[in-house]
Amino acid sequence: MSKVEVCLTPEFFNKYSTKNKIVVIVDILRATSIITTMFHHGLDKLIPVNNLDEAKDYKSRGLLIAAERNGKKLDFADFGNSPFEFTTENIKNKTIVYSTTNGTNTINIAAKSEQLIIASFLNLTSIANYLINEQKDVLILCSGWEGNYCIEDSLFAGALIEKLLISKLFAINGDSAIISSDVWKIAKEDIYQYIKRIHQYNRLAKLGMEDIIKYCFTVDITMVIPLYSKYYLIPIKK
Amino acid sequence: MSKVEVCLTPEFFNKYSTKNKIVVIVDILRATSIITTMFHHGLDKLIPVNNLDEAKDYKSRGLLIAAERNGKKLDFADFGNSPFEFTTENIKNKTIVYSTTNGTNTINIAAKSEQLIIASFLNLTSIANYLINEQKDVLILCSGWEGNYCIEDSLFAGALIEKLLISKLFAINGDSAIISSDVWKIAKEDIYQYIKRIHQYNRLAKLGMEDIIKYCFTVDITMVIPLYSKYYLIPIKK
Repeated sequence: MSKVEVCLTPEFFNKYSTKNKIVVIVDILRATSIITTMFHHGLDKLIPVNNLDEAKDYKSRGLLIAAERNGKKLDFADFGNSPFEFTTENIKNKTIVYSTTNGTNTINIAAKSEQLIIASFLNLTSIANYLINEQKDVLILCSGWEGNYCIEDSLFAGALIEKLLISKLFAINGDSAIISSDVWKIAKEDIYQYIKRIHQYNRLAKLGMEDIIKYCFTVDITMVIPLYSKYYLIPIKK
Repeated sequence: MSKVEVCLTPEFFNKYSTKNKIVVIVDILRATSIITTMFHHGLDKLIPVNNLDEAKDYKSRGLLIAAERNGKKLDFADFGNSPFEFTTENIKNKTIVYSTTNGTNTINIAAKSEQLIIASFLNLTSIANYLINEQKDVLILCSGWEGNYCIEDSLFAGALIEKLLISKLFAINGDSAIISSDVWKIAKEDIYQYIKRIHQYNRLAKLGMEDIIKYCFTVDITMVIPLYSKYYLIPIKK
């Protein structure tokens, strides 16, 4: 029986062992939803960076840059942080350097894990099936919001745990996995209604981003699985 | 309308303002349950300390010491961390110096808050009534477990929020309060069954402490409210 744990924010990551585990990075609003979208539309490679100077340096060397801070596209960037900017026409077979407020930081914090994959509702079933096939212990790492807890990443963790438990090959390990699983049971009855209560919905809706939020809670638009492989992400399946 | 927030662990405390708020400290297993018990049995004053050298220094000056690390009473201490040690006969009208793995640390982290009170299931209704009377914003600060999230403190936060919402004078503020409120709705249907799933239950039950755990989830054995007042705790009501 494999175990599935949840780490509620990157601040707690050093309290978990990653030995013989697959680490699943989650930042539903919006980094991992957008990364999934990019690879769905044929992106070849994604380089996650925290530091904007590093992003600018890549820009000067001719790479495409997607970068936002506090929800807004940065001036020097080619793309911001809306999933709708990343069309097949724009990004197929290309490399993008990506920097966001929370999500790319989470990837870099977990970069030394044995195996690191990127998950969102957009590739939920594909991620679940991959993990069930691999039969290793799983650590779901939530990005949170500015170093604090946020619900939307827990909701995804709960949805993924539900699928893993159905396989009867996984058991829940730890309080953070229990609470994520429980809150998902409540939320899934009417997910779009539920998320109207959460902090990020209210923050992003004020910026006119309801369509983006709704998109990020859409289940299974793609089978793609972004995998971290020394300094960049590549797709396991296209 | 006053607001009620939850901070899931002391690590996040610096992300919250405490201005014009009452901070409610929670460490259900076991510090705040035990502090409530002590004052219920007539304790005059409690001095929370993190540092064991400081506790030893107080000991050499003739004060009573309650101190544990990792669930076990320390050699030099007069009391350990079982609520059943603190009887009226032992502690009435006395001062105790108290040091635990998590809970006393939380008190000291929040020590500069304008108003700080200590809550547990044992004084739940008394705490709720006090807050409803005061009509200030409330920040429930959970102690967690070794710097990570734990469910039992969330459960209490959810139970307290439920009582505050019934008054119709409070509204929930933030994702941590939402998830605490939601998990309580699930758990309260059969709280003793629910807690068998959580990490601390399994850790403490292995040490033969089921009776202590059950005691810590008993609701309203006392009306006492421990209040922090510059370096020590005193009861608002006896």
